[in-house]
Amino acid sequence: MQNLFDGLDGIYEEIVGIRRHLHEYPELSFHEVKTAEYIADFHKKLGHETRTGVGGNGVVAYLKGEQPGPTVALRADFDALPIVEQTDVPFKSKNDGVMHACGHDGHTATLLGLAKVLNQMKSDLQGTVVFIHQHAEELPPGGAISMIEDGCLDGVDVIFGTHLQAESPLGEVGYRAGALQAAPDVFTIRIQGRGGHGAYPQQTIDSIAVGSQLINSLNQIVSRKIDPLDSAVLSVTSFVAENPYNVIADHAEMLGTVRTFKEETRVFMEEEMERVVKGICETARAGFEFKYTRGYPTLVNHEEETEFVAEIAKKIPGVTAVNETEPVMGGEDYSYYLQKVKGTFFFTGARNPEWEVSYPHHHPKFDIDERALLIAAKILGQATLEYMQVHAKQVQV
Amino acid sequence: MQNLFDGLDGIYEEIVGIRRHLHEYPELSFHEVKTAEYIADFHKKLGHETRTGVGGNGVVAYLKGEQPGPTVALRADFDALPIVEQTDVPFKSKNDGVMHACGHDGHTATLLGLAKVLNQMKSDLQGTVVFIHQHAEELPPGGAISMIEDGCLDGVDVIFGTHLQAESPLGEVGYRAGALQAAPDVFTIRIQGRGGHGAYPQQTIDSIAVGSQLINSLNQIVSRKIDPLDSAVLSVTSFVAENPYNVIADHAEMLGTVRTFKEETRVFMEEEMERVVKGICETARAGFEFKYTRGYPTLVNHEEETEFVAEIAKKIPGVTAVNETEPVMGGEDYSYYLQKVKGTFFFTGARNPEWEVSYPHHHPKFDIDERALLIAAKILGQATLEYMQVHAKQVQV
Amino acid sequence: MQNLFDGLDGIYEEIVGIRRHLHEYPELSFHEVKTAEYIADFHKKLGHETRTGVGGNGVVAYLKGEQPGPTVALRADFDALPIVEQTDVPFKSKNDGVMHACGHDGHTATLLGLAKVLNQMKSDLQGTVVFIHQHAEELPPGGAISMIEDGCLDGVDVIFGTHLQAESPLGEVGYRAGALQAAPDVFTIRIQGRGGHGAYPQQTIDSIAVGSQLINSLNQIVSRKIDPLDSAVLSVTSFVAENPYNVIADHAEMLGTVRTFKEETRVFMEEEMERVVKGICETARAGFEFKYTRGYPTLVNHEEETEFVAEIAKKIPGVTAVNETEPVMGGEDYSYYLQKVKGTFFFTGARNPEWEVSYPHHHPKFDIDERALLIAAKILGQATLEYMQVHAKQVQV
Amino acid sequence: MQNLFDGLDGIYEEIVGIRRHLHEYPELSFHEVKTAEYIADFHKKLGHETRTGVGGNGVVAYLKGEQPGPTVALRADFDALPIVEQTDVPFKSKNDGVMHACGHDGHTATLLGLAKVLNQMKSDLQGTVVFIHQHAEELPPGGAISMIEDGCLDGVDVIFGTHLQAESPLGEVGYRAGALQAAPDVFTIRIQGRGGHGAYPQQTIDSIAVGSQLINSLNQIVSRKIDPLDSAVLSVTSFVAENPYNVIADHAEMLGTVRTFKEETRVFMEEEMERVVKGICETARAGFEFKYTRGYPTLVNHEEETEFVAEIAKKIPGVTAVNETEPVMGGEDYSYYLQKVKGTFFFTGARNPEWEVSYPHHHPKFDIDERALLIAAKILGQATLEYMQVHAKQVQV
Repeated sequence: MQNLFDGLDGIYEEIVGIRRHLHEYPELSFHEVKTAEYIADFHKKLGHETRTGVGGNGVVAYLKGEQPGPTVALRADFDALPIVEQTDVPFKSKNDGVMHACGHDGHTATLLGLAKVLNQMKSDLQGTVVFIHQHAEELPPGGAISMIEDGCLDGVDVIFGTHLQAESPLGEVGYRAGALQAAPDVFTIRIQGRGGHGAYPQQTIDSIAVGSQLINSLNQIVSRKIDPLDSAVLSVTSFVAENPYNVIADHAEMLGTVRTFKEETRVFMEEEMERVVKGICETARAGFEFKYTRGYPTLVNHEEETEFVAEIAKKIPGVTAVNETEPVMGGEDYSYYLQKVKGTFFFTGARNPEWEVSYPHHHPKFDIDERALLIAAKILGQATLEYMQVHAKQVQV
Repeated sequence: MQNLFDGLDGIYEEIVGIRRHLHEYPELSFHEVKTAEYIADFHKKLGHETRTGVGGNGVVAYLKGEQPGPTVALRADFDALPIVEQTDVPFKSKNDGVMHACGHDGHTATLLGLAKVLNQMKSDLQGTVVFIHQHAEELPPGGAISMIEDGCLDGVDVIFGTHLQAESPLGEVGYRAGALQAAPDVFTIRIQGRGGHGAYPQQTIDSIAVGSQLINSLNQIVSRKIDPLDSAVLSVTSFVAENPYNVIADHAEMLGTVRTFKEETRVFMEEEMERVVKGICETARAGFEFKYTRGYPTLVNHEEETEFVAEIAKKIPGVTAVNETEPVMGGEDYSYYLQKVKGTFFFTGARNPEWEVSYPHHHPKFDIDERALLIAAKILGQATLEYMQVHAKQVQV
Repeated sequence: MQNLFDGLDGIYEEIVGIRRHLHEYPELSFHEVKTAEYIADFHKKLGHETRTGVGGNGVVAYLKGEQPGPTVALRADFDALPIVEQTDVPFKSKNDGVMHACGHDGHTATLLGLAKVLNQMKSDLQGTVVFIHQHAEELPPGGAISMIEDGCLDGVDVIFGTHLQAESPLGEVGYRAGALQAAPDVFTIRIQGRGGHGAYPQQTIDSIAVGSQLINSLNQIVSRKIDPLDSAVLSVTSFVAENPYNVIADHAEMLGTVRTFKEETRVFMEEEMERVVKGICETARAGFEFKYTRGYPTLVNHEEETEFVAEIAKKIPGVTAVNETEPVMGGEDYSYYLQKVKGTFFFTGARNPEWEVSYPHHHPKFDIDERALLIAAKILGQATLEYMQVHAKQVQV
Repeated sequence: MQNLFDGLDGIYEEIVGIRRHLHEYPELSFHEVKTAEYIADFHKKLGHETRTGVGGNGVVAYLKGEQPGPTVALRADFDALPIVEQTDVPFKSKNDGVMHACGHDGHTATLLGLAKVLNQMKSDLQGTVVFIHQHAEELPPGGAISMIEDGCLDGVDVIFGTHLQAESPLGEVGYRAGALQAAPDVFTIRIQGRGGHGAYPQQTIDSIAVGSQLINSLNQIVSRKIDPLDSAVLSVTSFVAENPYNVIADHAEMLGTVRTFKEETRVFMEEEMERVVKGICETARAGFEFKYTRGYPTLVNHEEETEFVAEIAKKIPGVTAVNETEPVMGGEDYSYYLQKVKGTFFFTGARNPEWEVSYPHHHPKFDIDERALLIAAKILGQATLEYMQVHAKQVQV
């Protein structure tokens, strides 16, 4: 045990360096070409068998221990977001309009650092570690589903993963058996009115007026139609009807997301939205297109593996609290792995306790306390080692 | 009189050709460089003294009759609109995204054709004709005001102008003493909310939700706060808050127009809008910027000159009806000329009676019956000649 | 002529007394029993042939001049409104919740005073005066239509009437040939949602939430769908959904008015309202009832009679200005009379110029300057005499 | 044990009879005079010491067992609701507009039946039973708080109570340690606009238009401003602005409820509502009054007592399932008792499994399966006996 922790402590600066490098050169979901190369190179230098182009830009690397045992997968995602970074960090994004504003740079650095240390422990390692470096977590359909189809889980017995949490204090770890993250769906709405001169509204069907009434109605579905003891979110995040000052909007385009945990609520939201879009547009004589695309499934952690990791987390240096966490409304395509193999996904607190303000994920000023990478690496590493120990023995016995 | 009408009939094909040429090469307001060159060349070939760069891209040409008499100005505008043409005409716009969708190509062709014919009648012409080719009518502050400052009305006794009306039947002429066209003002609104993840609306100030409520309120000012016997329009024509599906809108940009006839109503609209924008945004904890820019003044025709032209119109071949028209909500910077000199502005019907559908001005399928150009040229020409006749005599007597 | 004016001046106090008596004992539309008795008694004492119960509570009295001539009708209405008076006048309403807040007390006093004076001039009177005291002007279907059916216009050649205007200065008279007052329609809307416990909105169809969205849409019809150069009003004046704090509204009742001048606009408003009510309610799964009842027609003054009265008004002592007035959005069932016989309806200013504040008609603090009664009586009386003079001669010639 | 169940089975018809009698003569909260008399008479006939007028119309009866032991309180509420009953039952309400639509008739019949049977077991009873018959559960401030102040809990060791659930199947029992029922607050809003004639909206401040915009905003607080993983309800249940068709609303009165579990959410809802009411009204130049009254606290069950009752419920004949229930948004002033003494409150399913439709509490067609009264009585009785047994022993030991 001492080896793992010492090893990670010894390369902390290197882990931080990796994270900062990735932060400087973020790439959008499904366009993470250079990041994938960087990751693959790292593993190749360690001598790991490395598959690239897995299900897209995914990278999978294999560390085969010299002792017999189970196969443990560890997953980190590596895509970034279309956000203009507004921090002052020296390693600020050099790719304009793209930013690691969700901590995936940290996830990847954590996994690469851990790979290096576990590699050094290879002779004692009782089984195989599969490093799943997943592209495109942020953009449905996501990278997980195609990486699975491309075999990334083949032979895997269990999977572990974590998300750095910029708003949970450093040292805190959150776990939860069962539903942890919501199903994140996407919708688009197009309102087809009839354009015309801004001075003659009576000759037009004003797509902006229709859209405003529609949003007012959509924003009342959750408050008036969803059981307050259930959870749902409907956010219209984009509304575009761009015209000169004297041309009434011919059409408007809307985009947004729905989050739910229960299948029946998910079905209701889609049906109710369609009903409202149709009703409001037809009342106004406007045409419409409504498209509702299901995103990732609800992420459901396996009970035994979740408790296993929670127990391990309590023993990790730097961890001050291990709490059962509330579920969160954000989605994760890690959910697909858990539909195939046992495993769990947990949260690693990454808020520097001295910061007066912290910014939420996806915010232009998002930042993390890098010491969280070390904690995450230790939990994932220790879980891997102990899982191997237990299950290698089981095999032997 | 026969000379004028015969002359115009004789060059009808040329007038149409000019219009179609201009239609193929439309230029946006304040960027009408080639159109101005084309116009100036035309006048120069006729031997007219021609000033270019008047108040911007304006062109002013002078035809000096060989007989003494008054100075009559005729005005045509020549800018086009940022609209993607959707017609099937063979002379469809070759400048992508720019279109003569308001008939200014026709106005200019009318005036150039008339210039050519009047030029031929020069020896009998009792006074001077000033051809005011105005740029930038569509975009406040417009071209008129700077052309006036640059002297285009110097020495002018009276001004005549017309607008082709795509939705009035060919042969109909509309006139009105007093207020004919509304004051068209422009506003911009910026809502500054607070962005964030689409799954956590409670951490954000949703600029789209705020904007929708704001538009619902703005759209009730005219119906609830303006005397129904007065006239006002408030149109939000543009609403842009573009974001990924999972990022709640940090801010939203709105743009639109207000139309009024009375000064007190104009003042009220601006004040009430500011009150509503401020109130709704502050209620929602959002910041805001509200900018209200006055456009052209209300266009007020002079009574005597209006009746003078109406009487002439009745005698023009092809004119089937001369009606007192309702005022219109659209603005015109011709209003500035009428603040300086006597004159009138009238409407020339340009809808082909056989068309089943006609499209309003500023519509991507806008079109006109080109025979209206001939009618417009005859009215303007005849008004010029008769005005000179009357006023030259007055001078002599 | 002197006789009429002197006569009216001589009984000014009596006229004021009548008005104040009526003001103290106002009666609601269709319930004006005592007021009708009072009026009938007054005429009977003068010896006028008097019909009561005309088309309901209407009273018609006949003054037959001793000289031959035409038949001139004069009309005054006498119903009051369901308003709690908030003035401090000594003759404040003694019928709780009922108030002469529209000046009908003044109209009636004017006509009774005039009847008394014309009666004294009977020997010279060239024709017959028909005093039409109409009940129920405020509440459609109104009293006029049934009084006409009951013969009140039989034999009538012309009709004159006026309305006291609390917001026009004393001394000003307003006239207008053509459309003077809008067509006032009435609508009722019932939203049938599904009630339930206030803590479980998801089990209900919240009639108040539906109603609020509906009103927001209805309040945008005039601003977005009516030509700004046309005039229309849509006011939802009543909204009732009364429930305990913990019971979500099962249903809601709405009431209101639409005002238009043009038939096509009137038709559009009804159809568009129905479309919006249906669309919003069905979108929300609520049932609905929508009832649109046409009120009085647009009041259209006859041109010749209007100019005739305007000319007379200019000669009346105390009249300081006779102006062509804007039309008004309020309705008047005087419109029915003008559909049957020639005539006009004009406005008599009744605002005391020294009042700093004046309250609009139907306001709990509504009041008038009683000197306006004298002016109104003189105009109506003089119009009657001159009309008789002109038309008696015509008959003779 | 057999005695209790046999005893209750033996008087089942009598229990049903009591319930039906109470159902026929419902009384509104704080006006339950005859119901209180009926209850007091019942206990007096059993020879129980009976206090009336406890904290209002409350009744408290004491059954002193002949063996030493603890004091167990059982609570039933007995007020009804201002609802017009729409069922067809033969024992339909004879008090017009008042209805037992929440099952309190059943609660009371349950407790009275149980009192009779326990009375028969008096000689073996190891302690005292306090029957708390509480008035006014439906209407804050409720009867519990004043009954406690008036001593109803004096000497009480533990309290048990239940609510019949019309939408849970007969045989099912629901329990939950911790927060079970939300804090139900009440708000009133008065919008003070400016009335006027329906044809002249521009002279008024239309309280209905303002109110509609306000409700649209209020209905978006929960969906946009409350953490979706938290629970809150805001229902505007009453909106009254009653006016004639031609009088624009001078003012409007609104009423409604807010439900929350957490103190911070409760505080936020009140503050946010006030902000929105103020902001929308001031934007519209309307005055306002906003009053927010806290209702009962969140009902928090004690863990040990809850599990104790849950275990007992599993053994009761007729009980088919004992489930941990979700919390509910409805409030209960039973919460006050649990702030003072240990205890629990549970749900007894009362939906007849053969009914195709069941109506929610507070619905005009609400009904229950009366067999649930027997189950409720057995659970409460058995819990009383076993609690006494355990705690009497403890005392002895």
